[in-house]
Amino acid sequence: RFGYFGQDKLEVVRLLLCKISGCLTDGCFPISASGPEMVTVNEKDINGIRMLKQEEVDVILISSNEDLLPKGLAEKLSNMTDCQVIKLEKDIQGEVKAIMDSRKLDWKEVAYMGNDVQDVECLNLAGLSAVPTDAPVVALNAAKYSCHSAAGKGAVREFADHILLLKKKAKAQMEQNYQEGTSPLHIP
Amino acid sequence: RFGYFGQDKLEVVRLLLCKISGCLTDGCFPISASGPEMVTVNEKDINGIRMLKQEEVDVILISSNEDLLPKGLAEKLSNMTDCQVIKLEKDIQGEVKAIMDSRKLDWKEVAYMGNDVQDVECLNLAGLSAVPTDAPVVALNAAKYSCHSAAGKGAVREFADHILLLKKKAKAQMEQNYQEGTSPLHIP
Amino acid sequence: RFGYFGQDKLEVVRLLLCKISGCLTDGCFPISASGPEMVTVNEKDINGIRMLKQEEVDVILISSNEDLLPKGLAEKLSNMTDCQVIKLEKDIQGEVKAIMDSRKLDWKEVAYMGNDVQDVECLNLAGLSAVPTDAPVVALNAAKYSCHSAAGKGAVREFADHILLLKKKAKAQMEQNYQEGTSPLHIP
Amino acid sequence: RFGYFGQDKLEVVRLLLCKISGCLTDGCFPISASGPEMVTVNEKDINGIRMLKQEEVDVILISSNEDLLPKGLAEKLSNMTDCQVIKLEKDIQGEVKAIMDSRKLDWKEVAYMGNDVQDVECLNLAGLSAVPTDAPVVALNAAKYSCHSAAGKGAVREFADHILLLKKKAKAQMEQNYQEGTSPLHIP
Repeated sequence: RFGYFGQDKLEVVRLLLCKISGCLTDGCFPISASGPEMVTVNEKDINGIRMLKQEEVDVILISSNEDLLPKGLAEKLSNMTDCQVIKLEKDIQGEVKAIMDSRKLDWKEVAYMGNDVQDVECLNLAGLSAVPTDAPVVALNAAKYSCHSAAGKGAVREFADHILLLKKKAKAQMEQNYQEGTSPLHIP
Repeated sequence: RFGYFGQDKLEVVRLLLCKISGCLTDGCFPISASGPEMVTVNEKDINGIRMLKQEEVDVILISSNEDLLPKGLAEKLSNMTDCQVIKLEKDIQGEVKAIMDSRKLDWKEVAYMGNDVQDVECLNLAGLSAVPTDAPVVALNAAKYSCHSAAGKGAVREFADHILLLKKKAKAQMEQNYQEGTSPLHIP
Repeated sequence: RFGYFGQDKLEVVRLLLCKISGCLTDGCFPISASGPEMVTVNEKDINGIRMLKQEEVDVILISSNEDLLPKGLAEKLSNMTDCQVIKLEKDIQGEVKAIMDSRKLDWKEVAYMGNDVQDVECLNLAGLSAVPTDAPVVALNAAKYSCHSAAGKGAVREFADHILLLKKKAKAQMEQNYQEGTSPLHIP
Repeated sequence: RFGYFGQDKLEVVRLLLCKISGCLTDGCFPISASGPEMVTVNEKDINGIRMLKQEEVDVILISSNEDLLPKGLAEKLSNMTDCQVIKLEKDIQGEVKAIMDSRKLDWKEVAYMGNDVQDVECLNLAGLSAVPTDAPVVALNAAKYSCHSAAGKGAVREFADHILLLKKKAKAQMEQNYQEGTSPLHIP
């Protein structure tokens, strides 16, 4: 289903764009008169992000104007994961394209994790894309990979494992092609 | 199972009445000596309410004298969702009928989401009705649609998706009837 | 499996003994340096207790010396549910027997909800007994009824529904026996 | 699958090494600007640890430099469970070996519960090893026993039950061997 390996060029993912609310968190927010604003993250997912960065896949966390992510927590998550956090306006696809252009990346080199209707275009366009198992149907239908794990409970880690497995396979294939003389060695 | 399309008139839902406790929230309440009173909502469900309002389905949130919803949080949820919140006494059906009369709505135009024994009458009467998957059996048996999602974890969003899908189908049917000359065009 | 209806006498449950920690709550406790001590209850379960009391089944909540229930919260739960809370020592069975004696109740008239090894004797002896679906195996094996719901997420409500359904059946049977002249009318 | 009973010597587990984050807790951490740092534990798991200690299986809780366990909470968990807590550096296997040597224990006498890639070596080496059902695939593949329960929701208790069941079987076997005269009686 991935159609990941082009005929003329073997691509590997270099960037994961991952929504915070509903992917890295479970999308739940406590409502109280005076209590602290809060989200919950799982160590498995944080470890998944670390593993991607160790294997030279950069990770950008996404919040949007429409989500409920409390002010101030985006920065805290940025420090905690050592990832850039960007806040997107309505035109998610346009803004993602701008990020890709500034890094000279093609959609084939981008993985996208989202969870709702505003993510559908990016889920369709990205070389790899995923949603948590508890995402609304419209997002489940658009994603190339449906995680078995729910949002905030390992879905990001599961997608990270998936990306790294495909990257490993792509590298092995490139090496084999090089040894067979059918392509130059280019392992990112 | 819905028996939704009458022979003389095609109806679409114009109002969703949705219980807060046990539908929009998971029905859980923290008990502590001094901690803040709190409920938890999920962004998916809030998005479902937004989507209904964008498609001109009004949404009224319901609390009751018997639920545990902490004082003050109903108003906070009202602001957050931009929905009216009403507090019902024991006779839920009578009060819901009064709301419908003031808006000149028929039961066929009303969707109701509840989760327990006091909701059974409205679940039976409303044109569309739903319960979260973790509702007690008495409510599961009365609802026309049983969500796959649990309370506070996407059940409201799932019902919103269901309502909007049926509305889209009703509109398509109306347009077709108009083109075939069997009915006047009346798309709400 | 219940063997509930004796040959000489039809019994109905008059008392539910229900453990707080791991039955009415999910058994989880937050650990923090300074935060408030807290447990979580679900409105469905509270409603189940109300329904039992309306049908004249008394409910006593149980905590024990070995559970982690924070001091002060037992009283809060007592007020909230309008139930007596008792704290049991190691010999649960003996203390439960004393309560039964003071109320002149037989094991057949008692329902017991527990969740662990110290409850096994009472689960075996009580006329009706249940455990949440997430109870350890030793308790699952001893209980006459295994709830589909987990602790703190509707298990108490499910058992209450079960008790009330059996009570309704017992009453109907008693009325039928009376009309057939096989027994005096004695509906509690 | 366990291959637990050696030909020359019947072994029983004398020590459980159990990761705190993602085994005893669910691995979730609240992120807020000012709220308290917190983890959640379940009474079932605490009871499992108590039961092991009563049957003379010592339990050491493990945290690591890489987990998110808030400072100060390890000590609180240590008091609560009456277990030693040790903080491991990167070389988990080496440090575990040092603990074993100081207690003159063999891998066959050690049970290990972990949940991620850094635990794979110990999961492979320990006589008994387990992971919660929601562990990443790499850990699931390495563990000898996959719990049905999730982290922080009974997985530790389930593994404790498993260890105690095997210990009971080993003792019964030893007694039988002794009575048959095939081995000296040595019940730890």
